[in-house]
Amino acid sequence: MVRKRTPKNRRSSPQDSVVVIGLGRFGRSLALELVDEETEVLGIDEDPEIVQAMAGSLTHAVRADSTKEDALRQLGVHEFDRAVVAIGTDLEASILTASLLISFGIENVWAKAISEAHGRILTQLGVQHVVYPEHDMGQRVAHLVRGRMLDYIEFEDDFALVKTNPPAEILDIPLARSAVRTQYGVTVVAIKRPGEGFTYATPDTVVKAEDTIIVAGRTRATERFSELR
Amino acid sequence: MVRKRTPKNRRSSPQDSVVVIGLGRFGRSLALELVDEETEVLGIDEDPEIVQAMAGSLTHAVRADSTKEDALRQLGVHEFDRAVVAIGTDLEASILTASLLISFGIENVWAKAISEAHGRILTQLGVQHVVYPEHDMGQRVAHLVRGRMLDYIEFEDDFALVKTNPPAEILDIPLARSAVRTQYGVTVVAIKRPGEGFTYATPDTVVKAEDTIIVAGRTRATERFSELR
Amino acid sequence: MVRKRTPKNRRSSPQDSVVVIGLGRFGRSLALELVDEETEVLGIDEDPEIVQAMAGSLTHAVRADSTKEDALRQLGVHEFDRAVVAIGTDLEASILTASLLISFGIENVWAKAISEAHGRILTQLGVQHVVYPEHDMGQRVAHLVRGRMLDYIEFEDDFALVKTNPPAEILDIPLARSAVRTQYGVTVVAIKRPGEGFTYATPDTVVKAEDTIIVAGRTRATERFSELR
Amino acid sequence: MVRKRTPKNRRSSPQDSVVVIGLGRFGRSLALELVDEETEVLGIDEDPEIVQAMAGSLTHAVRADSTKEDALRQLGVHEFDRAVVAIGTDLEASILTASLLISFGIENVWAKAISEAHGRILTQLGVQHVVYPEHDMGQRVAHLVRGRMLDYIEFEDDFALVKTNPPAEILDIPLARSAVRTQYGVTVVAIKRPGEGFTYATPDTVVKAEDTIIVAGRTRATERFSELR
Amino acid sequence: MVRKRTPKNRRSSPQDSVVVIGLGRFGRSLALELVDEETEVLGIDEDPEIVQAMAGSLTHAVRADSTKEDALRQLGVHEFDRAVVAIGTDLEASILTASLLISFGIENVWAKAISEAHGRILTQLGVQHVVYPEHDMGQRVAHLVRGRMLDYIEFEDDFALVKTNPPAEILDIPLARSAVRTQYGVTVVAIKRPGEGFTYATPDTVVKAEDTIIVAGRTRATERFSELR
Amino acid sequence: MVRKRTPKNRRSSPQDSVVVIGLGRFGRSLALELVDEETEVLGIDEDPEIVQAMAGSLTHAVRADSTKEDALRQLGVHEFDRAVVAIGTDLEASILTASLLISFGIENVWAKAISEAHGRILTQLGVQHVVYPEHDMGQRVAHLVRGRMLDYIEFEDDFALVKTNPPAEILDIPLARSAVRTQYGVTVVAIKRPGEGFTYATPDTVVKAEDTIIVAGRTRATERFSELR
Amino acid sequence: MVRKRTPKNRRSSPQDSVVVIGLGRFGRSLALELVDEETEVLGIDEDPEIVQAMAGSLTHAVRADSTKEDALRQLGVHEFDRAVVAIGTDLEASILTASLLISFGIENVWAKAISEAHGRILTQLGVQHVVYPEHDMGQRVAHLVRGRMLDYIEFEDDFALVKTNPPAEILDIPLARSAVRTQYGVTVVAIKRPGEGFTYATPDTVVKAEDTIIVAGRTRATERFSELR
Amino acid sequence: MVRKRTPKNRRSSPQDSVVVIGLGRFGRSLALELVDEETEVLGIDEDPEIVQAMAGSLTHAVRADSTKEDALRQLGVHEFDRAVVAIGTDLEASILTASLLISFGIENVWAKAISEAHGRILTQLGVQHVVYPEHDMGQRVAHLVRGRMLDYIEFEDDFALVKTNPPAEILDIPLARSAVRTQYGVTVVAIKRPGEGFTYATPDTVVKAEDTIIVAGRTRATERFSELR
Repeated sequence: MVRKRTPKNRRSSPQDSVVVIGLGRFGRSLALELVDEETEVLGIDEDPEIVQAMAGSLTHAVRADSTKEDALRQLGVHEFDRAVVAIGTDLEASILTASLLISFGIENVWAKAISEAHGRILTQLGVQHVVYPEHDMGQRVAHLVRGRMLDYIEFEDDFALVKTNPPAEILDIPLARSAVRTQYGVTVVAIKRPGEGFTYATPDTVVKAEDTIIVAGRTRATERFSELR
Repeated sequence: MVRKRTPKNRRSSPQDSVVVIGLGRFGRSLALELVDEETEVLGIDEDPEIVQAMAGSLTHAVRADSTKEDALRQLGVHEFDRAVVAIGTDLEASILTASLLISFGIENVWAKAISEAHGRILTQLGVQHVVYPEHDMGQRVAHLVRGRMLDYIEFEDDFALVKTNPPAEILDIPLARSAVRTQYGVTVVAIKRPGEGFTYATPDTVVKAEDTIIVAGRTRATERFSELR
Repeated sequence: MVRKRTPKNRRSSPQDSVVVIGLGRFGRSLALELVDEETEVLGIDEDPEIVQAMAGSLTHAVRADSTKEDALRQLGVHEFDRAVVAIGTDLEASILTASLLISFGIENVWAKAISEAHGRILTQLGVQHVVYPEHDMGQRVAHLVRGRMLDYIEFEDDFALVKTNPPAEILDIPLARSAVRTQYGVTVVAIKRPGEGFTYATPDTVVKAEDTIIVAGRTRATERFSELR
Repeated sequence: MVRKRTPKNRRSSPQDSVVVIGLGRFGRSLALELVDEETEVLGIDEDPEIVQAMAGSLTHAVRADSTKEDALRQLGVHEFDRAVVAIGTDLEASILTASLLISFGIENVWAKAISEAHGRILTQLGVQHVVYPEHDMGQRVAHLVRGRMLDYIEFEDDFALVKTNPPAEILDIPLARSAVRTQYGVTVVAIKRPGEGFTYATPDTVVKAEDTIIVAGRTRATERFSELR
Repeated sequence: MVRKRTPKNRRSSPQDSVVVIGLGRFGRSLALELVDEETEVLGIDEDPEIVQAMAGSLTHAVRADSTKEDALRQLGVHEFDRAVVAIGTDLEASILTASLLISFGIENVWAKAISEAHGRILTQLGVQHVVYPEHDMGQRVAHLVRGRMLDYIEFEDDFALVKTNPPAEILDIPLARSAVRTQYGVTVVAIKRPGEGFTYATPDTVVKAEDTIIVAGRTRATERFSELR
Repeated sequence: MVRKRTPKNRRSSPQDSVVVIGLGRFGRSLALELVDEETEVLGIDEDPEIVQAMAGSLTHAVRADSTKEDALRQLGVHEFDRAVVAIGTDLEASILTASLLISFGIENVWAKAISEAHGRILTQLGVQHVVYPEHDMGQRVAHLVRGRMLDYIEFEDDFALVKTNPPAEILDIPLARSAVRTQYGVTVVAIKRPGEGFTYATPDTVVKAEDTIIVAGRTRATERFSELR
Repeated sequence: MVRKRTPKNRRSSPQDSVVVIGLGRFGRSLALELVDEETEVLGIDEDPEIVQAMAGSLTHAVRADSTKEDALRQLGVHEFDRAVVAIGTDLEASILTASLLISFGIENVWAKAISEAHGRILTQLGVQHVVYPEHDMGQRVAHLVRGRMLDYIEFEDDFALVKTNPPAEILDIPLARSAVRTQYGVTVVAIKRPGEGFTYATPDTVVKAEDTIIVAGRTRATERFSELR
Repeated sequence: MVRKRTPKNRRSSPQDSVVVIGLGRFGRSLALELVDEETEVLGIDEDPEIVQAMAGSLTHAVRADSTKEDALRQLGVHEFDRAVVAIGTDLEASILTASLLISFGIENVWAKAISEAHGRILTQLGVQHVVYPEHDMGQRVAHLVRGRMLDYIEFEDDFALVKTNPPAEILDIPLARSAVRTQYGVTVVAIKRPGEGFTYATPDTVVKAEDTIIVAGRTRATERFSELR
């Protein structure tokens, strides 16, 4: 069950291998996405049923108690450059595990936080990247609940991208001639015709009522634009 | 504590009021975001401490057992057009609550699912919008763990937007002259100069090494582009 | 342990096979009654002791976690036309199991409900037949507690059949000459002589004091009749 | 909270008052049915929420620990002639309560049993009427699961009444001329035209395809008859 | 592990075999005392450690769940004439076990009760001999706490035997001449010289200050006598 | 609630007052027996329901945590001369309480032990009188289970008193002429005629078949005698 | 209950006030020792009983949940210069509390660790002084268990002070003439005559057999010296 | 697993072997320190994981239930001269174990107490050496929290040794000429130059600002001295 890393492996690019500790919903989808992108993943969880269920999908799936230094060292976790602490709800296990990874000197440690206090502790321990799935998704979904957007993402304070149905006034004319940028302060970035995928929108693109568009702009501007009919 | 809705209130636009049941991390950040956008929010939770903590921030915050029909009716929940079941980890409470909302005939019900089986049940009950925060954030973070991206969002199968540092070969020339679209299949959508916010990128934009950019394109294309140095 | 169903089996009449999930008191007596009627039964329960105790009595008795899709598919549950969710008191397991059976497209799903909310959820999921043993037996027994009936069943709103001792005024004359139908609005359907079984009553039947009779009629009429002495 | 029984009350007919201990699904529907039939009911449960919910529907609803002799005596339970032990799943509470009722000398004690052992103990204690809701409903539902019956009740070993759709061969002729009794050994007892209630069937009755009928006969005969098409 | 009883064994005198269910403090000392008296004992307990510890001391010691009819029948418990239910503190297990023994028709069933309610139920079930160790020892010890007695036993209401040191006024004269019977209403039954055992006291016996005596009489008389100095 | 002891009380004889800690079955019957004998009793228990139930029967009944020195001192327990630790099954509470009583310098401390280890610890702490109710009653009942005795008590190793029905061969002749002492080594101590109490037996007493007798003697001798018919 | 700190208080010397969080054995004796030395102490614990018991002994004793930022701020904890996290066994509470104290910028934070992992996390969080009572006392007692020392303390690796009885060969001569320093490598630091306190030892001091001495030196040297007789 | 002790072993010096029961933080560091000092240690714990972790470090490490006399005798514990009861938090196990060791007649028993009541019971049982790690370390750390000391130990009431940085006024002159003894009542016992170990201080020693010193004296004197700057 122990991950063996040959010298040759060690020389492969750093994208090659990530250790993911905790294979709940978050860790699992993260690990599977990495494998899809051809990244080697060592998945670790305490629950043998979960490990068995993931065994066929990950490069390595191992049952271990990640709060024990010996257990992690036997798996070679201390030699990784990237690690994700995706432990679900057990604050203590999350902290003990993150503390060990930091003490190993791993350069890139990601950890999921379930509260502000949890996030503060992870940062104080030295974790570089703290993620708040519940919090971030809550914010994102708020925009969908509220209005007519189909999807929403805020990349930075005050710069968002929104998937929406086009309002009447930009239909059937080239985007260059519509007033989206001047009047609403947003730009149409991409367009999806029925039955096709998204493609990049140009000034010449003519939006039809049945299309879906992605617009970019300041948060409030995208909000207002998506409420037009 | 009971929400009173006057006939006049009922005539306000539908964006005005949302009931959010469950004020954990997901529900709380969703509710606060709605309030920020000037939407009225009735927040409901079983835990009096949580309700008290949120009382100052939401339009209404009430302690109630959302699995009881009487409790919801007393609060006027059956008169809302939009409701979010943001109950954290209690599968049974989530299902009982969603079942009641559907039986009330509420048109737009959003619900958070913690597993595929949970999501399937919610859909079978008639919930229109099922959200998987852990799963979706896991996928999103996978791209950040793996490469050099600063943020990542996939709006649809095979169309992603990525925040990243610019690679050397597009620096210091107008975007129109760089090969980003022809060679890498991506488009630079927005650019952020140090100390400023994001602004829309034009063909004339010249990217500098210290800028941050957002590029759009097919998923793999954005991945590859973000790995350039 | 896996049930193998040959093509020939599949062509047998639909009465041949039923899957019963949950082998508590309700599921067990249901399953045994089916076997008595020469119906094939696949009984499933989580408790290995219960499964072992039933192994000799059912066509197949298998220990499995019915909330897992894989477990049910391995047993071929998705190929059945009839299924009963007889899970005792675990609301969550009942719902997860029923949800899977509905998602398999099984045509006839019966499920036991332990509360009105449970029943509503089962119906919303798509379960066609919801049974309330505690509720129905409570109603039935109420009639026995109250009066002099020996047994009582209401087939429909306001049409009941009652087993009772005959009142004095119908004794020793042919039923045709008694006033049971005109005066009390009930009909004597069957009669049981001491030491014999029930047989159908005719207008010529003469009821004796030591006989037991079954009378049919509107609910109140049967009630009043059974209180005569 | 204490039930006061005036001497006058004591002289009322025995149907007037029943004590129902345990107000779960079984006890509740039993108690409500009694009240519907104008029987006075003293309902007792340990759970104050349940008592409060029933307070408006029963003659008296009281929170008390029915395993304590003092508690029952204070409520006058020892003066009742009829008592029902409808305690749900707590074997010990059921036995302690039944033991007290028997020691009070109450003549008619009904008790719900959840297993054979439970039923045997209740009988050994001296309880006259032991009811098995889960078991009995399991048997009854088995007949519905199996075939085409709409409802089924077995009044005695080998004498059943069945609600079903009529088979083709008895349609459109007077019952006297059909072969239901001679060929199938069953008798049509009652008939329900679409949109009406059940009425008694006579030899002259002509059954139509859209009617529902109740037939009586030996168990197997009713089974076979209901499978005709 | 199953007790095999040959026909010859069956003909041995009834004292030969007793089944003792529950091997806690009470059951254990009871069982060991029986073995000391050359009675065969089948000891049954649920706890394998207890059974193993007793295996060498009893005729048979078996781990079994005495609340299951099958388990008891396999051990031949239904063929015994004498059984003791010595189950410690688990009311439900005690009642289930006693109920089974009564249903087997065992003639002499002894059972330990831990409360009055428990004792009443055991009696209602048909147990002939109900024992209250805590209660009886409490009464016995009360007499020792209170006064100068060395031991005390009340054989019947108002007839007790007491072990005590002799009071001054009966010393050094033959008992026949002392006033113990006339003045105190007690009789000296037995006497123990230092370093010897008890022997029967006669009218000629002369009690010395260092002797221990047993006196019999009405309860209060023995009490008063023991308080003399 | 605090026991106030006036100087006058302090001068009353030591039999006057006993503190009994733990009012379970053993402590309760011990305390009630003391009160019957006109001894003052301060009963202490942690359970307010038990204390309330005993409040009317004991001189003082107080709810207190007997493992806390302050609690005991406030009740004046350190001033008593006699104390009984009758704590049921909580080994730790029993030891903590006994330790405090010993540290108070109370002269006569009685304590109930539930195991040999418990008894050894109590003795090592300095408790003078350790009682084993379960063990002692087990031994006593063993004699009743085994034979024809009606009651049995062993006052010392090898000297027992037994209540039994008289064997045929001692009937209808004066005891002086029967061979009970010479042949069986036992003495008839007392006799009870039907409907009367026990009285002392003399050499002239003639035992009848329907009498009950108490015999004294060496353990085995009394056993053998009671088996005669 | 809230600690009010006036500007004047703030100017008092830093020794004046310490916050001690957790009032178990360690925290309590630490806090009481500080009070003895006339240091102001704010003691915080979650258990109201503990807080009440300490209320009279500390400057301030408050019940609060130290894992909540608001609770600590309301008590003014963020204004202290010195804080001790003396939380007993709840790792999570210890870490959450320490994290908050560090985030307040408190300069001197002491924390008790119950394991190496706990200690590592506290250090990573930024706690300057981590204490291991169980570990350190274990080491210290080991020396007493092993030999003839009366007390032992190691101030630094390889420099210990030992309280012991003097060996024969240094008795009755001035220390300057004994060989303790040259032969055993230790120095006699202090001496205690029977019935007196310790005083400093000089070269002229003459040690007697009944004295107790403290010697200093390298660890092994003090060990060997204490084993001399 | 059983410790075999040959007669030869028995004759080795008493320092050779100690049994340590309980291998938590206290027991473990105590046991390891003993092994470092070449003392044989038999370590006993109930937890197999702990025993396995210690197996390589102790002479013998055995999993056993130390509350059982048989278990301890099989390991030969009754033959040891020294034993430590280092059981962490389980009061009952600590007392049962200590009671057994005392009953074995072991001469030197050390035990850790977690409260005053615990300590009193251990002493009443006969344990000679009771240790309070949490309490003692709490007192010791209080001195460090409060002032400028680096370490502190009180060997006896009112005689302490303190590690501290030297105050300005004793620097750069021979100790004999400084006023430490006359003015502050303390003596400089040892000195540590940067980068070196502690050595004994003589009247000629000249302390430098960067040195660390150990001073001895009455408790208050050392306190005051350490607060000088």
